Amino acid sequence: MQSILVLGAGQSSPCLIRYLLDQAEERDWFVTVADRDVALAEQRVAQHPRGIAMASDMTDMQLLGSQIEDADLVVGLMPPRFQPVIARECVRAGKHLVTASYRDESMRELDADARRMGVLLLPEMGLDPGFDLMSAMRIIERVHGDGGVIGSFESYGGGVLGPDSRANPLRYGITWNPRNVVMAGEAGASFRDAGRIKIIPWHSVFSRTWPIEVPGVGPMEAYANRDSLAYQQTLGLDEAGTMVRGTLRYPGWAELWHQLVRLGLPNEHLRVPDLPERHWRDVTEMFLPRGASGTSVAERVADYLGISRTGGIITKMRWLGLFDREPVGGEGTTIAEALASLLRRKLELPETEPDLVILQHQVIARYPDQGDRLERIVATFTRYGEPGGETAMAIGVGMPLVLGVRMVLEGRIPLRGSHLPTHPMIYGPVLDELEREGLRFEEVVGEPTEDDLAELEA
Amino acid sequence: MQSILVLGAGQSSPCLIRYLLDQAEERDWFVTVADRDVALAEQRVAQHPRGIAMASDMTDMQLLGSQIEDADLVVGLMPPRFQPVIARECVRAGKHLVTASYRDESMRELDADARRMGVLLLPEMGLDPGFDLMSAMRIIERVHGDGGVIGSFESYGGGVLGPDSRANPLRYGITWNPRNVVMAGEAGASFRDAGRIKIIPWHSVFSRTWPIEVPGVGPMEAYANRDSLAYQQTLGLDEAGTMVRGTLRYPGWAELWHQLVRLGLPNEHLRVPDLPERHWRDVTEMFLPRGASGTSVAERVADYLGISRTGGIITKMRWLGLFDREPVGGEGTTIAEALASLLRRKLELPETEPDLVILQHQVIARYPDQGDRLERIVATFTRYGEPGGETAMAIGVGMPLVLGVRMVLEGRIPLRGSHLPTHPMIYGPVLDELEREGLRFEEVVGEPTEDDLAELEA
Repeated sequence: MQSILVLGAGQSSPCLIRYLLDQAEERDWFVTVADRDVALAEQRVAQHPRGIAMASDMTDMQLLGSQIEDADLVVGLMPPRFQPVIARECVRAGKHLVTASYRDESMRELDADARRMGVLLLPEMGLDPGFDLMSAMRIIERVHGDGGVIGSFESYGGGVLGPDSRANPLRYGITWNPRNVVMAGEAGASFRDAGRIKIIPWHSVFSRTWPIEVPGVGPMEAYANRDSLAYQQTLGLDEAGTMVRGTLRYPGWAELWHQLVRLGLPNEHLRVPDLPERHWRDVTEMFLPRGASGTSVAERVADYLGISRTGGIITKMRWLGLFDREPVGGEGTTIAEALASLLRRKLELPETEPDLVILQHQVIARYPDQGDRLERIVATFTRYGEPGGETAMAIGVGMPLVLGVRMVLEGRIPLRGSHLPTHPMIYGPVLDELEREGLRFEEVVGEPTEDDLAELEA
Repeated sequence: MQSILVLGAGQSSPCLIRYLLDQAEERDWFVTVADRDVALAEQRVAQHPRGIAMASDMTDMQLLGSQIEDADLVVGLMPPRFQPVIARECVRAGKHLVTASYRDESMRELDADARRMGVLLLPEMGLDPGFDLMSAMRIIERVHGDGGVIGSFESYGGGVLGPDSRANPLRYGITWNPRNVVMAGEAGASFRDAGRIKIIPWHSVFSRTWPIEVPGVGPMEAYANRDSLAYQQTLGLDEAGTMVRGTLRYPGWAELWHQLVRLGLPNEHLRVPDLPERHWRDVTEMFLPRGASGTSVAERVADYLGISRTGGIITKMRWLGLFDREPVGGEGTTIAEALASLLRRKLELPETEPDLVILQHQVIARYPDQGDRLERIVATFTRYGEPGGETAMAIGVGMPLVLGVRMVLEGRIPLRGSHLPTHPMIYGPVLDELEREGLRFEEVVGEPTEDDLAELEA
C-alpha cells in the first residue's frame, strides 16, 4: 500500500481528495488529510475506509516530521509561506512532494539536497501555475514543430463568477485562499514588452490594466501577474519579444483594488492589537493621516485618495463594509487577515451559482519557411463549477495534482530534484489525461490584428 | 570548554567576534565563525588559537545541523530571512540562540517547542533592536518608580556619517547589511498618534517625515520605523497615547528614497535575467511605462515621477549612477540586490571618517502625585566609530550581543522559550555592563514644549 499525505484541506482541495479516495481501493492507496482545522479535514475524508483526517500544526516540527515520515508522497496545499518548511522536511525524510504553489527560492535551494536524497519536488502542478504552463508548452511545441518562431506570448488566468452573475457588485467569488486575493501584486510584476523588460511596483500594478476579450464570457480586464520573465525561462521561450502573464477580472475590480493598495489595507506585516473587536470604520481611519478633510470616514478616504466622494469606487468600498460600525471579528492580527475574512464573507460563492475559471493564451507565431507568414493563436479554457458542489477552481487545481501524484507513485516520473511540469516527461501525459477528463482548450487560429503588428514592430 | 557558533561574519560582526575571542581564554570558550564567505570568516578569526573559521551554507541542512549540534550556543548574524531556519535547527538540537534580528513570527511559533527542549531564543539583542529597548525600559522603570505615567514615547535610531562629512551627497555610509537600507519600510509602518493607531504603507513611509534635533549633531529627519505597536507591547507601555519609533537620516535622504520606492527599484521578489551585464540606465528604464516623455532616461524618470528635471532628487539619482551606461556587475538577480551593491560601493564608509550611531528617546511623563507635573525627557546616545577600524555600528550591535552570550553561558538567564531583552532579568545587568564599557545615554530633563502639550491634548 502507498500512503499519500495531503497537507491542507482548504477550498482548492475537495476535488483532489475525492479523486484520490475514489481511486484508493483500485490503486492500493491510503490517503491522510491533515489540516489545522481537523473538522474540515474530516469533512473532506467523509469516513472513507481508505482515508483518515488529522490535525496539522506547522509550528510543531515533530508532528509535521512524523506525519511526513509515515507517507510515501506528500501533496502540499498549505499557504505558500509554509512551503519551505514542508519541502525541507520532505527532503529530510526522503519523500516526494507535489504542490500547486509557485517554485520559490527554497525549492530552488533544495534541488541538490533533493537529488542526494532521491526526492522529487514538483511544484506548480495545479491550475495556474500548472495547467497553464503545460498547455502553453503544447502550443509552443506545435509551433516549433511546424518550423515557427514565437514573437509574442500572453497568458491569462482568473477565477471569477459567471458573466451574468448579480451576486455581488465586484462580480467575484472566493474560491481559493482569500489571502492570495488580498496580497495579489505584492511582489510587483515584470514582463517583456516588445523586446524590453518592464517592471511595475505593487502600488502601480492595479492601475496599469488592459482589456481582454474572452470568447463566451465577454470583456474583462487584465493586470500583470508576478514574474513573467521567470515564466518565459520556464517555457524556454527566449525568442519571444513580448511575454506577459496577466490575471483576469471583470472590469472595475482593478480600479477599486488600486485604491485599497494606495490606502495601504493589504498589509500582512503589521499586527494591530485587539483587531477583532475594532470597528471597520476605525480600521479604515488608521490609514488616513491626521487632519484629513471630510466629515465622514468615506469622505476622508475619497478626499485623501483624490477619488469621487460618490463614485463607483467609494460605493464598492462602502458595500464591502469598510466604513461600517461593525466589528472586524475573526481571529486575525493583521489588516490583511481581516480583509481576507471580509472578502470571504462578502464575496462568498452563492450556493446557486457556478464559479468560472478562465485560462487564455494569445500567441503570435511567425513561420520563416512559409514566407514569414504570421499566425495569431487564441487558446481559451473556460470551465464552470457545479453550483453548490465542486468549484471549477477545485477541479482545475485538483485534476493536474491528482495526475501528478499518480504518475509519481507509478514511477512514471523518474526525475529527482526540483522540477516543473514543463518537463516533457510530465506535461504530455498529463494533458492527454486532462483532455480525457474534459479539461481542454478551444483554439482560434487566424491572422494577426493591426495592433498585433504594431506590437511586433515596436 | 563552551563552544560558541557565530553564524555570519558581515559588517556588524567584528566587535562581537573580537570580544568573544579576547575573553575566550579566560572564560574557556571556543569560537567558531561561519560565513558563506569563508575568507571573511578567516579574517575575523585572524588565526586566534581559540577560534576557527568555517564555510556556512544555509541551503545545506546537514551542514547547518551539524554545525549547530557541535555548539553550546549560537549567535545569529545572518540576514533575517534565514532566522526561521536557524531558530528551528537550534530548537531541534537543544541549543540556545542569541541574535540581533527582530523577533519574527517563526520565533513566536517556536516558543513552546523551545521551552520543551530547554532552549532560550533571545532575539533583538543588538543595537536597534536591542540597546534601544533596554535603555527605554530603564527610563520607563524610573518614571514608574517615581509615580509617573508616560503619555508619549518616541524612540529614534540611525547609523550615519558624521554631521560634517562631505564624503557623499547623501551623507550616509554603509555600516550594516545594505539590503536592509534598500528594503527599509517594506513592511509599512504603524504607530500610535495621540491615542489613535496610524498605519502607513511602504509607498508613503518616506513621504511622511518629521524633523528631529539631535544634540551635538544637528537637524535630522525621521521616518516611521516598522511596528511601533509591537514595540509598545514589548515595553509594556499601554498607557502611552503616542508611541512612535523612527529612523533618523540627514535631511534629504527620505525625499530621494520616496521617489526610488515610487519608481519601484527596491524589489527583491522579481528576478531579472542577466542582470550583472545590464547597464544601470537600462535597468532604470524598466520602471518607466512605454512611451514616457523626455529625451534622456533622467528626463523620463523626472517627468514620470513629476519631480524637477534639474533638482536635488534627480541630481542624487544621477550621482548614484542610475542613469549611467555602466554594467550593474556583481552576482545579484534582483534589482534590490543590484541596488544594495551600488550603495555599498557609492556609500562606502571612508577610511578616514568615523561612522556615527544615534539612539534617542523623547518621553513625556506626567506625575499625578505631584500636581500633574509634566516632564520632558530627552535621552540621547551618540557614538562615533574608529576611522578605518571598528565602526560604531559594529560596537553598538556587538556589545549587547557579547553580554547576552556571556550571561546565557554563565547560567545567569535561566529563561526558556522565546524572550526579549526587556525582561528584567536581562536589561538591568546588561545596561550596567554597557555603561562600564562607555555606552550610555545623556539625558536632558525639562518642561514639555507647546507642541508637546498640543500633542498630549489632541
